[in-house]
Amino acid sequence: MRDQRRVRHPALRGVALALLAVAALLARPALAEDGYELWLRYRPLPAAQATSYRAHATQLVLDAGTPTRAAARAELLRGLDGLLGQATGEAKQATRDGAIVAGTLASAPQLVPLKLDLRALGNDGFLIRSVTLDGHAATVIAANTDIGVLYGAFRLLRLVQTGQPLAQLDLRDAPREKVRVLNHWDNLDGHVERGYAGNSIWDWWKLPDYLDPRYTDYARANASVGINGAVLNNVNANATILRHEYLLKVAAVAGVLRPYGMRVYLSARFSAPMELGGLKTADPLDPAVRTWWRGKADEIYKLIPDFGGFLVKANSEGQPGPQDYHRSHADGANMLADALAPHSGIVMWRAFVYSNENPDDRAKQAYTEFKPLDGQFRRNVLLQVKNGPIDFQPREPFSPLFGAMPRTPLMMEFQVTKEYLGFATHLVYLGALYEEVLQADTYARGKGSTVAKIIDGELDNHALTGMAGVANIGSDRDWCGSTFNQANWYAFGRLAWNPAQSARDIATDWTRMTLSRDDAVVKPVVAMMMASREAVVDYMTPLGLHHLMGTGHHYGPMPWDASGARADWRPVYYHRADRNGIGFDRSRTGSNAVAQYAAPVAAQFDDLKQVPDAYLLWFHHVPWTYRMRSGHTLWEDLVAHYTHGVDEVKQLRATWSKLQGRIDAQRYAKTASFLAIQQNEAQWWRDASIAYWQSLNGLPLPAGQKPPARTLDYYKALAFPNAPGR
Amino acid sequence: MRDQRRVRHPALRGVALALLAVAALLARPALAEDGYELWLRYRPLPAAQATSYRAHATQLVLDAGTPTRAAARAELLRGLDGLLGQATGEAKQATRDGAIVAGTLASAPQLVPLKLDLRALGNDGFLIRSVTLDGHAATVIAANTDIGVLYGAFRLLRLVQTGQPLAQLDLRDAPREKVRVLNHWDNLDGHVERGYAGNSIWDWWKLPDYLDPRYTDYARANASVGINGAVLNNVNANATILRHEYLLKVAAVAGVLRPYGMRVYLSARFSAPMELGGLKTADPLDPAVRTWWRGKADEIYKLIPDFGGFLVKANSEGQPGPQDYHRSHADGANMLADALAPHSGIVMWRAFVYSNENPDDRAKQAYTEFKPLDGQFRRNVLLQVKNGPIDFQPREPFSPLFGAMPRTPLMMEFQVTKEYLGFATHLVYLGALYEEVLQADTYARGKGSTVAKIIDGELDNHALTGMAGVANIGSDRDWCGSTFNQANWYAFGRLAWNPAQSARDIATDWTRMTLSRDDAVVKPVVAMMMASREAVVDYMTPLGLHHLMGTGHHYGPMPWDASGARADWRPVYYHRADRNGIGFDRSRTGSNAVAQYAAPVAAQFDDLKQVPDAYLLWFHHVPWTYRMRSGHTLWEDLVAHYTHGVDEVKQLRATWSKLQGRIDAQRYAKTASFLAIQQNEAQWWRDASIAYWQSLNGLPLPAGQKPPARTLDYYKALAFPNAPGR
Repeated sequence: MRDQRRVRHPALRGVALALLAVAALLARPALAEDGYELWLRYRPLPAAQATSYRAHATQLVLDAGTPTRAAARAELLRGLDGLLGQATGEAKQATRDGAIVAGTLASAPQLVPLKLDLRALGNDGFLIRSVTLDGHAATVIAANTDIGVLYGAFRLLRLVQTGQPLAQLDLRDAPREKVRVLNHWDNLDGHVERGYAGNSIWDWWKLPDYLDPRYTDYARANASVGINGAVLNNVNANATILRHEYLLKVAAVAGVLRPYGMRVYLSARFSAPMELGGLKTADPLDPAVRTWWRGKADEIYKLIPDFGGFLVKANSEGQPGPQDYHRSHADGANMLADALAPHSGIVMWRAFVYSNENPDDRAKQAYTEFKPLDGQFRRNVLLQVKNGPIDFQPREPFSPLFGAMPRTPLMMEFQVTKEYLGFATHLVYLGALYEEVLQADTYARGKGSTVAKIIDGELDNHALTGMAGVANIGSDRDWCGSTFNQANWYAFGRLAWNPAQSARDIATDWTRMTLSRDDAVVKPVVAMMMASREAVVDYMTPLGLHHLMGTGHHYGPMPWDASGARADWRPVYYHRADRNGIGFDRSRTGSNAVAQYAAPVAAQFDDLKQVPDAYLLWFHHVPWTYRMRSGHTLWEDLVAHYTHGVDEVKQLRATWSKLQGRIDAQRYAKTASFLAIQQNEAQWWRDASIAYWQSLNGLPLPAGQKPPARTLDYYKALAFPNAPGR
Repeated sequence: MRDQRRVRHPALRGVALALLAVAALLARPALAEDGYELWLRYRPLPAAQATSYRAHATQLVLDAGTPTRAAARAELLRGLDGLLGQATGEAKQATRDGAIVAGTLASAPQLVPLKLDLRALGNDGFLIRSVTLDGHAATVIAANTDIGVLYGAFRLLRLVQTGQPLAQLDLRDAPREKVRVLNHWDNLDGHVERGYAGNSIWDWWKLPDYLDPRYTDYARANASVGINGAVLNNVNANATILRHEYLLKVAAVAGVLRPYGMRVYLSARFSAPMELGGLKTADPLDPAVRTWWRGKADEIYKLIPDFGGFLVKANSEGQPGPQDYHRSHADGANMLADALAPHSGIVMWRAFVYSNENPDDRAKQAYTEFKPLDGQFRRNVLLQVKNGPIDFQPREPFSPLFGAMPRTPLMMEFQVTKEYLGFATHLVYLGALYEEVLQADTYARGKGSTVAKIIDGELDNHALTGMAGVANIGSDRDWCGSTFNQANWYAFGRLAWNPAQSARDIATDWTRMTLSRDDAVVKPVVAMMMASREAVVDYMTPLGLHHLMGTGHHYGPMPWDASGARADWRPVYYHRADRNGIGFDRSRTGSNAVAQYAAPVAAQFDDLKQVPDAYLLWFHHVPWTYRMRSGHTLWEDLVAHYTHGVDEVKQLRATWSKLQGRIDAQRYAKTASFLAIQQNEAQWWRDASIAYWQSLNGLPLPAGQKPPARTLDYYKALAFPNAPGR
């Protein structure tokens, strides 16, 4: 206000005072960046950028006559107003240069003369093009459907958020997966299984009467990356969700999500006909059971005409299923598929099965169970396969089911919540993990048969395709428990839209949208993200080790644990370490899990000389003294990997600390605190693991390596009765 | 912006553009009123009001040399900047008219010449006075301690928020209770017992490494009403909180709360010496047990020098306690008091005890147990007594312990969370309930011996005094699950500071601070609040009925229930209704609970002609045909009360609906949704209760009364397996 005395113009003085008032307002902590906005963060651009964009956003022409187009209009106004610091005008047609004209050909007939070719866009695609319309320069967002218009609106905003030019646009995009769906492992009492971001966002108690505004923001965030469905309840399902009074609640949620192109799905408990219907069996071939499910489907579709369908975890970890009646998974899936088919609903049947009573290698069991069923599923069944053969470990080879069931559409199941990767606090960018899996070559139809091409239907000509992400979303203010966890939700959505995208590009977009458009922030942050996944592999489970975490809660290292209720829940089952060596022999001379892969892959994994270091101990049991490609012994390299993982986290912290002042204080401080936690826990993983391996192999630490900070007994005595997510 | 074309001055145009940008920014939903700000809502005042206040807030003179004074400075700047739309200047001394000068005499020596009389202010009091200082008109906030300065700062802001003049101030205030404390029934896994606002705000998992900014805002809110302590964990205590690694977490919370004058307390599990110390007993007279507790206290105070002390629920509802060793409650409390005394800590020992094995009226048991112990407690023990003899019902007579133990300081325990009053969604202003209890006359030392005068120490000359509120705070964005629940936290704090205050005045302040300064809002909202408590009594438990809610979850009516594990958990125990009559005979010819009150009170409650209608069925069993003062039969009046309760809720809805547009959309809509829920549930309470009473008494509905909407069987069949708060 030092210039205030020079202000003579009374109006200016009034404005200046008002500005000052507003400046004070903006300084208030209510405006703290608490992360709620996610990547839909429409803060004002620097003046020069805003000015240049304003020329391309002088007015909006969008007939908001449907809820979805109304959502597109609201989002464009919100985004443009915020980013460009303007009150974007609206018009019925382009009346000046710089209009944005959006719609389908039916809702925006002025687009018809442009003869846009929309055929290849399908239901969800859109084009964005710079054109001349009614004599004015305009940007067109066109699509075959309203939801395509909404997706296009979000894409236009992304262009502005990420600093792309709006001149001479000619962009068209359509999703490569049909079903892009989040799996909420949310229980009806609000607890989220393996959730580390508070309770469920679904307030079943107050539904259907109270519709939390958060549901709308959830839908906005999902639509912005193209996610078009949500399974609202845990795969370890409670039949109560299928009761009529709960279906009314589900319908209320569906009503909020619908304008954003999202369908609701439910996890169905296979034994529901007994629990709710009073039947004596849930045998999928029993006529009364089939009638019950058909009736239930009819009831659901009366309330929710666009209901997506069922997700089912059957005969897995104690859940009921068709095998309880000596029926196959196909029998079970098809029975539900038949109930849903009249309404165009689908079944997502999970392939995550393994049995303690089966003496065979757990990593082989899903393939063994499901491969023989190829071709036996109804057309509206997707088989939902976790990325690896065990369970969402920091690194696994791709599941051998990918490529092994060409007559069955396989759907990817990724985990977005970090059950095995440090819960809420560790910074681990999962885009890198997803990309590694999607780009893995199955050789199912020769070289280039990537997992991505299998799940997008290209390789085997499937029309029904999909990708599921186990959500990391909860009631925490920042949705995901940490700023960087938001990137995993974002990356999942982007890759579900198009599995061929680059994880680094996605990270770059996310950073620009979420944190800063300043390259001095974007470059180091993207580098942190891209380094983070290898770091967690190294400090937790390097060189192909897996499943060494604390039993039950999955927090921290417990490689010594042999106490689990089932052999295949015990870490010692997986590492098989003793005085002489370590690793699970899955080669031809071992469990022969390698044989489940296509020949070229099997040959590579089977051969000690060819297997990548990253999978060495996944597929082979080798002596501690085994000579690695590096020239060092296995023991030396193993310890080096652990130490490297810790050092990488130190580097993440150092990089982040240099960004202080370039990122708002609240989000800066939270990530800084979390990186400190991550460093401590990375050190703990390293030290506890090394202490245990040494207790077996009796080997001295390699030269230059620091000994564990504590004794093995100390680490063994740690207990975590209140670990979240259980 | 219709004037924009007239703007010629280029600077003005720039400013106008910036203003426009800011206006757009302000329209963004990130600024939606989600209730997080509570009553510390420093939104800009209308221009005329702001202008007049600015003359009294031209600069701030406050030496922020301690954390508490820094908090006072930050709050004043935040509040004044926000409310007055200015950037409040700061100075080392008053250099112009309108300065605010705040401090102790030591930190603001310029106040010394004013010869302010601070003696009566004590540790927590303050004065606010309009003075002339260094030749300038100034407003002084002075206190003996930094926390007094902070309290004074909040009071000054309240004056502005509620529209009081700042001229010619001469205000002094000091609390009448010493210990003003919230009881969090928060478990270490994050679940809040009887919490209806999400999970615990205490993130034990990430403590002590991550300090959620919410902890600071929690402390600000509490300090603003004078709450000076918090018991962080559930009275149904887990000994784990006393483990060293958890004490480090507690110390981290204490560090955040300390600048705001808040001490942390813990609920202590009586058997902790066995569970943590490996002792074979927790006998309070056992030397090893005493040594263990002394050591634990020493350990705590090393980490938290201002630790407040222990809250204990012993030999109550299954909790361990001294009676397990045939020792008295005094033995148990004194043992802990001795451990804490060297550090000036206190014990808050709960009097909430009752036993299923005791055949005597549950309402009598706490008195029977504790009255004989009067005078046997150490000087640093407070006996914490619930407001009524049963358990936080919509209405209870005051506990007969108030006034019955003159040699023991009794501390009030109010419930702020609405365990028995409709959970999060019902609008029930508890200020009215608190006031009714505090103003109740015990006649312990003759007329005028109000409960307020007992708990503030006046009646029996106690220096150690206190009031506890069972918190309604959780991780929900609006802290308390609803906007109006915030008023209950606020009212508790205000009454803990001074139990003589008027509930209506407090409601008025709260409404002005939280919702609007517009009388067109304030008057109807305060009327709603003041009517709401009698409404809930009427639709749930009119005329002295009590404890008729669903067993276990405490949701909804279940007067027919006789299935509870214990007789004294069964609704039928409390209403004793049959074909002929209803009510619990606690008169001299019944359980004689009336005899626990002072003679004049006992006489009134005992006499059917004198007992207030509100307590009729609490103290008397009467025929359905009993003729009431109104001239109607009991049955007629009972039904009329139920109906009246429902009608009152309809009226609340009608009043609220007229405020649409005068309150921000988000908070308006949430309350509107909740009032709809409340109306449905009030109707359910009425209808289910009437249906049940009719099934007993066979009486027709009084003329003009609508029959229940459903059959009794329908209401009996309802089940709520996922009710929150259990």
